[in-house]
Amino acid sequence: MRDPVKVLVLGTGQMGSGIVRLLGRKRGLALVGVHGRRTDRAGLDVGTAIGLESPLGLPIRSDLERLCDEVRPDVAIQATCSRAADAESELAVLLERGVNAITIAEEMAWPAAQSPDVAARLDALARTRGATLLGTGVNPGFVLDLLVLVLTAVCADVASITATRTNDLSPYGPTVLTAQGVGLSPDAFRRGVEDGSVFGHLGFRESIAMIAAVLGWEVERIDETRRPIVARVRRETPFVTVEPGQVAGCEHEAIAHVAGRTAITLVHPQQVHPELEGVATGDRIEIDGTPPVRMSGSPEIPGGLATVALAVNAIPRVLAAAPGLMSIADLPPPAAILGDARQTRDPLRRPDHG
Amino acid sequence: MRDPVKVLVLGTGQMGSGIVRLLGRKRGLALVGVHGRRTDRAGLDVGTAIGLESPLGLPIRSDLERLCDEVRPDVAIQATCSRAADAESELAVLLERGVNAITIAEEMAWPAAQSPDVAARLDALARTRGATLLGTGVNPGFVLDLLVLVLTAVCADVASITATRTNDLSPYGPTVLTAQGVGLSPDAFRRGVEDGSVFGHLGFRESIAMIAAVLGWEVERIDETRRPIVARVRRETPFVTVEPGQVAGCEHEAIAHVAGRTAITLVHPQQVHPELEGVATGDRIEIDGTPPVRMSGSPEIPGGLATVALAVNAIPRVLAAAPGLMSIADLPPPAAILGDARQTRDPLRRPDHG
Repeated sequence: MRDPVKVLVLGTGQMGSGIVRLLGRKRGLALVGVHGRRTDRAGLDVGTAIGLESPLGLPIRSDLERLCDEVRPDVAIQATCSRAADAESELAVLLERGVNAITIAEEMAWPAAQSPDVAARLDALARTRGATLLGTGVNPGFVLDLLVLVLTAVCADVASITATRTNDLSPYGPTVLTAQGVGLSPDAFRRGVEDGSVFGHLGFRESIAMIAAVLGWEVERIDETRRPIVARVRRETPFVTVEPGQVAGCEHEAIAHVAGRTAITLVHPQQVHPELEGVATGDRIEIDGTPPVRMSGSPEIPGGLATVALAVNAIPRVLAAAPGLMSIADLPPPAAILGDARQTRDPLRRPDHG
Repeated sequence: MRDPVKVLVLGTGQMGSGIVRLLGRKRGLALVGVHGRRTDRAGLDVGTAIGLESPLGLPIRSDLERLCDEVRPDVAIQATCSRAADAESELAVLLERGVNAITIAEEMAWPAAQSPDVAARLDALARTRGATLLGTGVNPGFVLDLLVLVLTAVCADVASITATRTNDLSPYGPTVLTAQGVGLSPDAFRRGVEDGSVFGHLGFRESIAMIAAVLGWEVERIDETRRPIVARVRRETPFVTVEPGQVAGCEHEAIAHVAGRTAITLVHPQQVHPELEGVATGDRIEIDGTPPVRMSGSPEIPGGLATVALAVNAIPRVLAAAPGLMSIADLPPPAAILGDARQTRDPLRRPDHG
């Protein structure tokens, strides 16, 4: 059988660490290098740095170009940032060298939505070098867009779509909590929304652009609202204490209008400890169409675990894809890798028991 | 813009009629011919035959080869049969002429499961002639396989999968009801299972083969059971009356074993008027994995409408695919066609409002 697929990971935070751990459990995939942006961590053993039981014998590197040239990865997974503009330079280093790239940067799920110039530059570079670039992740990229699109496949027609993801922010740290305004007074929350420091969910623009482009809808306008979720009881996490009357999270909603009517409504209420006030977390997709389709699950698909899995599970699809910038809707859908990741799918394969 | 995609439909039953009707509502798709197996219907106007308000100006034809040569379709949809062996000759006529083919024959969702020779012959023919062949439909093909696979994409690991589809047979006619043993005594049901006249659901072998092949599981054994659903109250449809103590349907279950344990459990209880005994219809997928994933919807995605929609919505994916036999898991997932079916997806597309 061919050599294992050589995988490079960019990022040593929670997502990058999770990806490194998962790669170690997959047959046919070999971690060949880890890049971290922080130069003060360069040289630390990856295993030690991310808390594995034993060292991995691979140092964290901060010289991406040299690392790439030395280890010549087949594919790299970027887990360093959220914005397309921030993701571009690392992705360009990879693509220039013909390295296929998967990124979990939220805006890269459909970069043309907010950074069309970045999207066009990276697409051109990828095509020139024969590499594929994919943005993936749980949201944007899965629950509020890919899963919605897959469910519309059974519809002769669709009037409107509503998708809601209600989750629990309790496991998250200060960066996420600040972005959702957790712990603020309702007034400070409103000021934060105005000045942009409370921005809620990153990804509605990408999800809406993906859904609309694939279905063939022309979006006329997107209205976004960010409402404070005000606690009625005390809610406490290791990073924040929310007293009654303070903000426990942000109910962020985006509505896309098509042909003068509401076509896509995405709702993402994020808060710490929703269960303390009887709020169940979960994912729900409702398609008002012919036939109507409703699917839901509770609790929600956990974002961190899911994003790590999606990034790794996408590897075989990216390796098999045509060059250029792809969205998750452009490829055969990823699925869990439970056998050898190098195994190519063969629709002629006879069942083993047959 | 290019000419509309020329579509040929094979079959004038409930599914074929539904496909013809839906094609009439889609921009960029043009119905260019309809083939029916029954020679006594040849020459009837398609619109009149399927009960449209006005004739379509297209006669039903029963000479498939000549029809193909005359109208030169880009793609054909076959809705004439369930078994791969029965589907093969019509599909061969299409593929020989380089016509892309979509079939809703249940066994063609993964023909290697039960008819590996048919699968190999049609694959070779399709490749030689540069045509693509896809089997699709709601089940097998969507609820108990594609949707399951898509949901595993968020899993780092999967221990087992259980998927259940509980539906209502009340709209169906004698052929379907007989296959499920509806109206029989429990004893006659058991004899029917033994002699093969009561066979339950067609598609478990295909769904299991698809799931296993894509995930990389090796299936050791499949156990199937068909249990009678015995009515406790009178259940009546236009085609059958089930008295208390008689069989209202069949609970068909298939369990696939992998590495010595239960890995895939598919359950499909089908009966007339389940609501009369408080049974809710619906689709439910449970993945015991990391993370666990549960999604469900009630009522079930309606099979007839969904299969018609899937067949039509698959057209753009089939036209864009490489030649050969494909499964629905090998292509970018279909989605509802709400714009022009000829529009190719472009991940660089800027949102229209941008």
